[in-house]
Amino acid sequence: MSQLEAVLAHLDANADAAEERLFTFLRMESISTDPAYKAECRKAADWAAADLAAIGFDASVRDTTGHPMVVAHSGGDGPKFLFYGHYDVQPVDPLDLWTAPPFEPVIADGPQGPEIRARGAADDKGQLMTFVEACRAWKAVTGSLPVNVTIFLEGEEESGSPSLIPFLKENAEELKSELALVCDTGMWDAETPAISTMLRGGVAEEVVIHAADRDLHSGMYGGPAMNPIRVLTKALGALHDDTGRVTLAGFYDGVHEIGDNMKADWEALGFSHTDFLGEVGLAEPAGEQGYSALEQIWSRPTCEFTGITGGYTGEGFKTVLPAEARAKISCRLVGDQDPDAIRASLRAHVESFLPADCTAEWISHGGSKAISMPTDGPRFLRARQALSDEWPKDAVFAGCGGGIPVVGHFQSILGMQSMLIGFGLNDDRIHSPNEKYSRASFHKGARSWARVLATLAEA
Amino acid sequence: MSQLEAVLAHLDANADAAEERLFTFLRMESISTDPAYKAECRKAADWAAADLAAIGFDASVRDTTGHPMVVAHSGGDGPKFLFYGHYDVQPVDPLDLWTAPPFEPVIADGPQGPEIRARGAADDKGQLMTFVEACRAWKAVTGSLPVNVTIFLEGEEESGSPSLIPFLKENAEELKSELALVCDTGMWDAETPAISTMLRGGVAEEVVIHAADRDLHSGMYGGPAMNPIRVLTKALGALHDDTGRVTLAGFYDGVHEIGDNMKADWEALGFSHTDFLGEVGLAEPAGEQGYSALEQIWSRPTCEFTGITGGYTGEGFKTVLPAEARAKISCRLVGDQDPDAIRASLRAHVESFLPADCTAEWISHGGSKAISMPTDGPRFLRARQALSDEWPKDAVFAGCGGGIPVVGHFQSILGMQSMLIGFGLNDDRIHSPNEKYSRASFHKGARSWARVLATLAEA
Repeated sequence: MSQLEAVLAHLDANADAAEERLFTFLRMESISTDPAYKAECRKAADWAAADLAAIGFDASVRDTTGHPMVVAHSGGDGPKFLFYGHYDVQPVDPLDLWTAPPFEPVIADGPQGPEIRARGAADDKGQLMTFVEACRAWKAVTGSLPVNVTIFLEGEEESGSPSLIPFLKENAEELKSELALVCDTGMWDAETPAISTMLRGGVAEEVVIHAADRDLHSGMYGGPAMNPIRVLTKALGALHDDTGRVTLAGFYDGVHEIGDNMKADWEALGFSHTDFLGEVGLAEPAGEQGYSALEQIWSRPTCEFTGITGGYTGEGFKTVLPAEARAKISCRLVGDQDPDAIRASLRAHVESFLPADCTAEWISHGGSKAISMPTDGPRFLRARQALSDEWPKDAVFAGCGGGIPVVGHFQSILGMQSMLIGFGLNDDRIHSPNEKYSRASFHKGARSWARVLATLAEA
Repeated sequence: MSQLEAVLAHLDANADAAEERLFTFLRMESISTDPAYKAECRKAADWAAADLAAIGFDASVRDTTGHPMVVAHSGGDGPKFLFYGHYDVQPVDPLDLWTAPPFEPVIADGPQGPEIRARGAADDKGQLMTFVEACRAWKAVTGSLPVNVTIFLEGEEESGSPSLIPFLKENAEELKSELALVCDTGMWDAETPAISTMLRGGVAEEVVIHAADRDLHSGMYGGPAMNPIRVLTKALGALHDDTGRVTLAGFYDGVHEIGDNMKADWEALGFSHTDFLGEVGLAEPAGEQGYSALEQIWSRPTCEFTGITGGYTGEGFKTVLPAEARAKISCRLVGDQDPDAIRASLRAHVESFLPADCTAEWISHGGSKAISMPTDGPRFLRARQALSDEWPKDAVFAGCGGGIPVVGHFQSILGMQSMLIGFGLNDDRIHSPNEKYSRASFHKGARSWARVLATLAEA
């Protein structure tokens, strides 16, 4: 039996213990965007560091002005690889749509087999623990890892990563590696693993339209008093034309059409928008006309509204003219789109709709450029083969609709490329009620990383 | 000393006790729109009935399918007059803007003298108690009222009055009177009392745009999945043109220009939109161009958004595409506008914006036509004189921006006109944090009703 085979056998034999560790981690309510959960975030960081120390890493919890970072070094010779994951999770509202409490993980029967249900099961605690379990198994079987590894876990990924850039700059020497390994993406389908090679960037903005200095009665003031919801809906309602294109000035600057080769590869994947959308109760691609749904996700930019609120939103009716109205706007970027230019254009657009008596207040929730990975190097090709060895179908190089801003920061601050391997599935309901991670993703994900670690040791 | 003078002196001598009774009433958290406050609504109804029984009314609390009604008869000979008020109040959010708890009434120094601060102080507990205190004083001094009075208090005025129409129909004989007296309107200013002679009607609608069957990740689905906030903002953003006119088909059918006489009377009032809007931090009339701010409030219809919500509205940012988005829309109607036609037009407008994969769900929160009162009868002229006798300046016949749907129901169901006399001021912050009622409004309001009751006894 080769060393790798022994490591894989060890993972199989110890799968229950690995699942128990993940459940402990999932019980921590590490919602980073809500200050009420600050102590729970700290608890999750402490737990992760202690778990890594237990398998021999030199692990520490590092304070920031927000939630702490975890950094853990395996030590050893040769080129170093930096693994990145995040221990924070999304908020859980609307809570009444969860079939079980979000922080009490359970195994449930899913349409594709057993699944682990909890907030963070897929995004990202379950994913990051696939890598930790692979390391644990290599250490248990051989006493060391095939390569020198630093594990770096963030606690602010779901809240705009305010501490990330300063931390990377201050600890550049310690973190700089041959290649970053990131486990926060998905498979092509439940049988087909993927390395994500294109990532959309993003701009996240929040705007508050202010009008009167207090809420007003709509009977007494309705008419002469400007209503901030009227201003907000008019400005946001003009952001898309009837073909789904974004109307912002300069929005498509730097957006490139994908090449014919890639287009052919993507068409060969046999993606069915009917299946993809049908799974969530939709039927028609709503993005730009003239692009397939897969192109809309992987290679076209978007401007979406992720939240809006103003006035009375409770049960019943209240005849109020609100003092303010608020929206959260998330643009996804591709190619060479410039986040700063898009942000400026969005602000100018909304401000062009401001009448007398209204002002716009802006809160930035971060931004990043889109990224393309170099997929022709031997490490990417060997990793692809390692994944193909583990799963029923061969691995693919895929796009990715979501952005992973840290990949851009690794590139710009540490001069380091990233390899994105993850085991999420489209129906994992990340950011939604009843988030889950397939038990197969968790177990075969750990086996996959055990294989990839072996390939990284090759010259 | 005449009987009336003795009654007025009694009110002056017993003002503190009257204020204590009002404070007791204000401590009851009778928020009708929120089911959590059902027992508090019942408590307020019970208290009001007991208070009326204590001064000799035959008072009862009548169950409905919602909150109960209070009906109390003074008995006595001659024509009967029906007094209407409501014991329910608006919700109190945002709670953090209150300087004192909303249900712990206090006397505070206001710019125009002492004021009673609490939710419901002006709308409508303080107002309705002016009438009750006038009755109490007449009974205390003379043993009876100048006229036969039935007091009718509703507990669902702030939540669409679902029980009102059935109750009026079932109890028509008991409630039908010569004239209804309604205390839910305002003075022209702190020195000038008013009888409101035009009331805007209303249509209140809530729409929910449904898209996917769950919340989605904006990275994974952004582009091909239709975003209900995009649909909602586009539909609502098209409801007003750049001159402030409402674009709904047929919206202005039945809207009449006011006559030159009334226009001249209104201009003579010396209304300053700079002062009116300046008080709440605004400057420019936002309604239809070509109409004064007073015309915009009193004689022009509006379409306002009183609430909007969708997606993640908490602190921070969440990359979610929501499954639904919701808005509450309040139209104010004038002249002969037909609430049913406006409702149908609004629904058709929004539905014309629905793309594939979206549906609109509608919740009606009631509707009513606008009302004009006959102001040339002797009762209106004598009441105007009685008010002029009490206050520093002569009373005026005024318009009113808010609607009081019960006035329309009194007309259509009971064939009964209404006389609207109230003592609210523009800065009472009704429906807003720190609602107040001037102590002068409360005390001189009771004195005013004592005088009006005397005039109603005249042939």
